Amino acid sequence: MRILGIDPGYGIVGFGIIDTHRNNAVVDFGVIETPKDMPFPERLSRIEEGFKMLFETYKPDEVAIEELFYFHNQTTVIPVAEARGVIILTAKKYCNRLFEYTPMQIKQALTGNGRAEKKQMQFMVKNVLGLEKIPKPDDAADALAVALCHSQINPNLNDNMI
Amino acid sequence: MRILGIDPGYGIVGFGIIDTHRNNAVVDFGVIETPKDMPFPERLSRIEEGFKMLFETYKPDEVAIEELFYFHNQTTVIPVAEARGVIILTAKKYCNRLFEYTPMQIKQALTGNGRAEKKQMQFMVKNVLGLEKIPKPDDAADALAVALCHSQINPNLNDNMI
Repeated sequence: MRILGIDPGYGIVGFGIIDTHRNNAVVDFGVIETPKDMPFPERLSRIEEGFKMLFETYKPDEVAIEELFYFHNQTTVIPVAEARGVIILTAKKYCNRLFEYTPMQIKQALTGNGRAEKKQMQFMVKNVLGLEKIPKPDDAADALAVALCHSQINPNLNDNMI
Repeated sequence: MRILGIDPGYGIVGFGIIDTHRNNAVVDFGVIETPKDMPFPERLSRIEEGFKMLFETYKPDEVAIEELFYFHNQTTVIPVAEARGVIILTAKKYCNRLFEYTPMQIKQALTGNGRAEKKQMQFMVKNVLGLEKIPKPDDAADALAVALCHSQINPNLNDNMI
């Protein structure tokens, strides 16, 4: 099974693709970026285009995306959620199996500790995926972590489908 | 000029269309609804489909959408923003002139008071548009208010384009 993991955002959106039938082999990872000075509706179009290309190129069987929460003083939550809506809409057109995970679930799945630090997460992503170094940028590593989290949840007990 | 006003949401999205060249004649208003028990990605698809139909039917020249803010304990802000992202993405495909207004700007434009109450706003929508009664549901009246607000802003001084 091929999983596309997504770390949502609007300036930088991370993606990471792994094949569970090949021992979680990394297929690709990276980011879709949109320029700061680009009007917001165009940034959303750019994100849509980026994901269309990813879906058409890699044809993932399942998609896992990080859930969004509002924390105090988190000024970007609204545009990030707007971009996340576009990502979910686009994913739905190519794939009927979409799942979402909280940051705590992702940390728990990878390290056994729902409050693990970023460095520990990145170390586990590198090790579990058998990579030579930590994937860069951070958003791509985060997206691979989402994909890995999804691969580790028992599909019969998975109530994270959206 | 034909304006499509939008009151964003995911369960109920209000729309209102007016023609400024015909003394703000109301072309249509209403809501796009998505069922509570429908998976969220499908609700987003439903909203996209609804707006595609509106754009293809009415071909608005400009689109005005209410801006979203986070208020304390506003638990729905994230899914509303996700739907708003889908609406902006869809609007962008049909129309290059998108504008956003804060609730305060809309109230100010219609009543002269940025803190006007809902009833006062609805009264003004009905009167300015020459309707026999207040448009229902509230979300449709709100969307007509956004369209009216946009029609009243001097286009040469309008920095609300997104």
